Amino acid sequence: MREVTILGATGSVGRSTLDLIRRNRDRFEIVALTAHRDVEGLAALAREFGARQAVIADETLYVPLRDSLAGTGIQAHAGADEVEQAAASGAEWTMAAIVGTAGLKPVLRALEGGGTVAFANKEALVSAGDLMMRTATASGATLLPVDSEHNAIFQCLDRAHPESVRRITLTASGGPFRTWPIERMREATPAEAIAHPNWSMGAKISVDCATLMNKGLELIEAYHLFPVGADALDVVVHPQSVVHSLVEYVDGSVLAQLGAPDMRVPIAYTLAWPERMATPCERLDLVGIGTLEFEAPDLVRFPALELARQALAQNGAKPAILNAANEIGVAAFLENRIGFVDIAALVSKVLAAYDPPAPASIDEVLEIDREARRVAADLTGKTRL
Amino acid sequence: MREVTILGATGSVGRSTLDLIRRNRDRFEIVALTAHRDVEGLAALAREFGARQAVIADETLYVPLRDSLAGTGIQAHAGADEVEQAAASGAEWTMAAIVGTAGLKPVLRALEGGGTVAFANKEALVSAGDLMMRTATASGATLLPVDSEHNAIFQCLDRAHPESVRRITLTASGGPFRTWPIERMREATPAEAIAHPNWSMGAKISVDCATLMNKGLELIEAYHLFPVGADALDVVVHPQSVVHSLVEYVDGSVLAQLGAPDMRVPIAYTLAWPERMATPCERLDLVGIGTLEFEAPDLVRFPALELARQALAQNGAKPAILNAANEIGVAAFLENRIGFVDIAALVSKVLAAYDPPAPASIDEVLEIDREARRVAADLTGKTRL
Repeated sequence: MREVTILGATGSVGRSTLDLIRRNRDRFEIVALTAHRDVEGLAALAREFGARQAVIADETLYVPLRDSLAGTGIQAHAGADEVEQAAASGAEWTMAAIVGTAGLKPVLRALEGGGTVAFANKEALVSAGDLMMRTATASGATLLPVDSEHNAIFQCLDRAHPESVRRITLTASGGPFRTWPIERMREATPAEAIAHPNWSMGAKISVDCATLMNKGLELIEAYHLFPVGADALDVVVHPQSVVHSLVEYVDGSVLAQLGAPDMRVPIAYTLAWPERMATPCERLDLVGIGTLEFEAPDLVRFPALELARQALAQNGAKPAILNAANEIGVAAFLENRIGFVDIAALVSKVLAAYDPPAPASIDEVLEIDREARRVAADLTGKTRL
Repeated sequence: MREVTILGATGSVGRSTLDLIRRNRDRFEIVALTAHRDVEGLAALAREFGARQAVIADETLYVPLRDSLAGTGIQAHAGADEVEQAAASGAEWTMAAIVGTAGLKPVLRALEGGGTVAFANKEALVSAGDLMMRTATASGATLLPVDSEHNAIFQCLDRAHPESVRRITLTASGGPFRTWPIERMREATPAEAIAHPNWSMGAKISVDCATLMNKGLELIEAYHLFPVGADALDVVVHPQSVVHSLVEYVDGSVLAQLGAPDMRVPIAYTLAWPERMATPCERLDLVGIGTLEFEAPDLVRFPALELARQALAQNGAKPAILNAANEIGVAAFLENRIGFVDIAALVSKVLAAYDPPAPASIDEVLEIDREARRVAADLTGKTRL
């Protein structure tokens, strides 16, 4: 029996994780489940899986959670501090699937515990990568990436011999505007931007796929997860999203992980690691797919990728600023306040305008994040940048 | 320093192995080099690499070898028994690159030694797979496949958890007749058959790629090398020969090894295993290649694949007969005595006509091989089968 805590249990990754655990009930025991505001969802999952505790981040929802769990023996808690407590509860395996900067402190607590942490929170590595990795190294925690690209790299990487890696290549779908001329991209609407060709995702991440900022953020995550150096990280556009990423070795061998676009595949990998568990996921049908294409990303039409590279080269506070400014830019685009190509332009301006020292704590990361959002929001006061 | 013996040092695989050792002289020490008839080539390599001994298989060439090595301190030997002796010399690492059934006894001797054996001799696993694997298991020898497909599988396979493998897929280029109608294949000439699209190879193996018999033989080899069962082995046609093979796991993950078509990549993998060594091989350029295609093999136009599957299902003597009959068929085709589609027809007839019990020794394998060739040669007395 593996003791499991799921931070962000009612979101997409949390529910997929529990779907896999549901099919393997004899192998997992739930220590804690946490959620942001979905009390009913959280209570239902806690009851179904016999969790020891359920924690709702929004303090005002304590009473409904407590009432919903009355008589079950499941402890009810509420508030951000209680989420951190749950993360620090020392589960053997923790899924870190809280979305956004709210996940930073819980992830850090989970890493401090020294267990295995499945990483689905992008901000933890983009905005606080150095802090997270230092913590993991100190505690001996094992990080298992959940994101399909990083999970692919993890599967292909010879972690005992990182010096034998020559290059890590992340694949990018290229998004809905892959073949659009720049003139047309200037007029792109939110509805066009969120029509992702391969994965069904939320609006924010779909726009990030359309700008390739998503791949830029993943490049920064890869830098922290895999000790090969920024120069060994590469991106290739692969519209079919079948090859999830590749690792090239000094002998000329390239290992790749492929699969159908189902998040349960990488999640199952992290749940069963270092073994494997069966999933009900669709099997990869290469013959049915027929053709896999690869092309170089166009950095002129997709400058976000280059902005992320520059932020990574400077490191310090820059990746956190990149991420925060991008969130404000995407939100402004989705509200039709700025154009599609203005998102990257905004990020570039915020990176140039705001240059604080490297954060030494999560609180400093959160402060940089807030200030970068403020600077970005000020700049989006104009309809065009 | 790794002590190395190369059986078949003057052939293509042997020379590629020595090319890699030449670039890493401080890491390898040559115990023995053997060759079939190329005395001058063998003596030159033995001198260059400071081998302890050089063995020429053709006994009549002892004097020229001895004279060529006079004064070097390198021992000269000749004859098949001496090749076996060299194979049994207990080198830590042996490259088994003797072509054809002449390689069977030396390979068995190398396996008996319990060291690491890099396998480039097809017949050892196709015709005597059960014997070879039993010997390796008994001695604790490690088999490292050199063939690009099996090497790819070896790199992708979690050998600690073979039960987690759902399917192993070997890729086939499809050969020069991949898109030809059967009518045109009936008239195919040897020159057309040996025009392999991706790899530069000898005439025999090129014809095997054109019939897909090569892939059938590899399927049999894979059955012995990887403990997943015949039903879990699959073949997909992939004209670009960039993906060298794939391993699918129960969770839905598929791992693949890719690379430029250069035998030094898998050879380097076996030389450095479990680490990696740098090679001068061309790097894989997925963007330059652009497109990877996959299609199902057409078993009507390429019946050799199905014949190999049937031979494997019956096992015993059948794979040795398949291989021997195919050699006679290919030779007859190259001499314009039978048509291209007659090769598989001949193999099918020999498999039906000759049904000895399973071989219990290499001598019995050699006897089955000889008799199958005789039956096949008799059948090719006619111009059309």
